[in-house]
Amino acid sequence: MTLVFSQTRPFDLVELEQLLASVGWSRRPVRRVRRALDHSLLKVGLWRHDSRFPRLIGFARCTGDGILEATVWDVAVHPIYQGSGLGKKLMAYILQSLREIGVRRVTLFADPGVVSFYKAQGWILEPRGHKCAFWYAN
Amino acid sequence: MTLVFSQTRPFDLVELEQLLASVGWSRRPVRRVRRALDHSLLKVGLWRHDSRFPRLIGFARCTGDGILEATVWDVAVHPIYQGSGLGKKLMAYILQSLREIGVRRVTLFADPGVVSFYKAQGWILEPRGHKCAFWYAN
Repeated sequence: MTLVFSQTRPFDLVELEQLLASVGWSRRPVRRVRRALDHSLLKVGLWRHDSRFPRLIGFARCTGDGILEATVWDVAVHPIYQGSGLGKKLMAYILQSLREIGVRRVTLFADPGVVSFYKAQGWILEPRGHKCAFWYAN
Repeated sequence: MTLVFSQTRPFDLVELEQLLASVGWSRRPVRRVRRALDHSLLKVGLWRHDSRFPRLIGFARCTGDGILEATVWDVAVHPIYQGSGLGKKLMAYILQSLREIGVRRVTLFADPGVVSFYKAQGWILEPRGHKCAFWYAN
């Protein structure tokens, strides 16, 4: 099995939403997802290579200003490919890509279930008592 | 005293860093700040109007993809202008601006000292157990 990371290969948005749904993210309108991808700082696909039927099995993206702040969103590895370190490799790939463009601090909002995953990779939870805050439009 | 919000008026970066330092943010190289502002989704200045010497007394900016995610950074109101609701007005202005471009969820990382400030304006702290995570480059 050959796996390929790519920042440039285009996404089939239906396949992407299926991947995100497989790890429990709620569905979002394709039109909004397309615009969000177009305006992301970085988007990374992890592909299972197959000359005829390549499959998207992992994904993550970042927003940010490209220098002071970068925030990671929509991290997913398809459940049947989990447990073999791909999530860790995906995050390492993203951090290396951000480092190369000069970003020295990266942030994310971690679900309770993945806090230990990020901690194990050197992420600091709630540094200096920071709390994450969400605001939702009515 | 006339106060003006603006998304378009250019910033004197030295004045901006002085403002941010006045509320305790650590200083950052001007070159990096300029690039970060250039690539921010939204940047808002709060100006004390004066035809000869306008003063920057408040600031905030957002990064994001412009539709699914927007994150607020560098919120500041100069200490001598605090306590009269300007911070609240600044946040309301930002949320309204984001709402107008179609953003329905906004996020931020709150210092311990301002958690109650955001809570009082309808922000939800750590929804569904979310934790904020930071990664720093070596």
